[in-house]
Amino acid sequence: MEIDLSRPILARNDALAEGNRARLAESGAFALDVLASPGAGKTTTILATIAALRERYRIAVIEGDIASKVDAEKVKAHGIPAVQINTGGACHLEADMISRALDAIPLAELDLVIIENVGNLVCPTEFDLGQGARIVILSVPEGDDKPLKYPGIFAMAEAILLNKVDAISFFDFDEAAFADSVRRLNGTAPIFRMSAKTGEGVAEWAEWLAARIEGAK
Amino acid sequence: MEIDLSRPILARNDALAEGNRARLAESGAFALDVLASPGAGKTTTILATIAALRERYRIAVIEGDIASKVDAEKVKAHGIPAVQINTGGACHLEADMISRALDAIPLAELDLVIIENVGNLVCPTEFDLGQGARIVILSVPEGDDKPLKYPGIFAMAEAILLNKVDAISFFDFDEAAFADSVRRLNGTAPIFRMSAKTGEGVAEWAEWLAARIEGAK
Repeated sequence: MEIDLSRPILARNDALAEGNRARLAESGAFALDVLASPGAGKTTTILATIAALRERYRIAVIEGDIASKVDAEKVKAHGIPAVQINTGGACHLEADMISRALDAIPLAELDLVIIENVGNLVCPTEFDLGQGARIVILSVPEGDDKPLKYPGIFAMAEAILLNKVDAISFFDFDEAAFADSVRRLNGTAPIFRMSAKTGEGVAEWAEWLAARIEGAK
Repeated sequence: MEIDLSRPILARNDALAEGNRARLAESGAFALDVLASPGAGKTTTILATIAALRERYRIAVIEGDIASKVDAEKVKAHGIPAVQINTGGACHLEADMISRALDAIPLAELDLVIIENVGNLVCPTEFDLGQGARIVILSVPEGDDKPLKYPGIFAMAEAILLNKVDAISFFDFDEAAFADSVRRLNGTAPIFRMSAKTGEGVAEWAEWLAARIEGAK
């Protein structure tokens, strides 16, 4: 006999995620779950997004990592509330972790909660957090073949950020092949070319996010 | 009541891994498990390693990915036997997958079996495959803070390859801070500075691996 424990674990997570979603809806805050490989530029992109939108919206950040609190400290240094979740080994955030993090931020006063998931293109996709949207960041140095290898995350993302385009001349990255692979998995998500470091393309991505924040009010 | 299914699953995996280890020892082949983030340059590093060692050793490659067979095709194009494992969603290879892959390669004729694990800095660490050594590749664009965030994999690696050093002027990567973080987790693993693309540093890494292959004979 085989016991499939994944089903009840995911069912429990989904119920907690719906609770988070209801709390966020009640407060009128939009939650964005940011997925990417380690080192794709999640934190830098979040900081660039905050810089683009902080005059218009009240923002907090939930940082997920296996260990360390360096990312939450980076965000707090910009005067933005941040909570660090250390998963203690787990390769993804789960809805109950987000539920506890929502207790620790001033939710009623917020328009946008950005969740930085653990750096991983696989495991987070199975765990709904109650977010309003999920995005994936791929950085140019990772290569244009990643949608072929990690199709689940590219199929599910509502927007795809191609980061570190300032380094594109340094790497063999075929943008047409990348866009083509994405389109076979995902017919609707926009692809934003950007560099969180130089600021290129950040405004276009931020406008997409602003429209989603307005939609959640 | 909570049921911890991870213990029996890992115990079963460990038993299968010991079986793989015994088969490899019997044939005198050394198995190298290569761990890294998506896009760190695992396949390119494996191809550079093959180029450095193929005159001296008989080599085969086991490629692990969620989906696609592009990596095995790249290796086969160089005239090296390769088996592609598609995990069908799982974020790591397991010992039973390697056992079946060993059936599909000419083990008795080999000196070196290179296993490319799924791109993930978390999940593969818990699953022994029966390898002779595990290494981790970190690429410069991922950032120098990764040992802080993914300590398990840097603590366990027997060698650490810092790849894409040809791009170091393009990224803010503090090599001293990186080495210091690694040393706090791992007192013995050498750090090889290299670029699989330009070939810089590949010879030093290949000599370390050659010594391990000789030790397994």
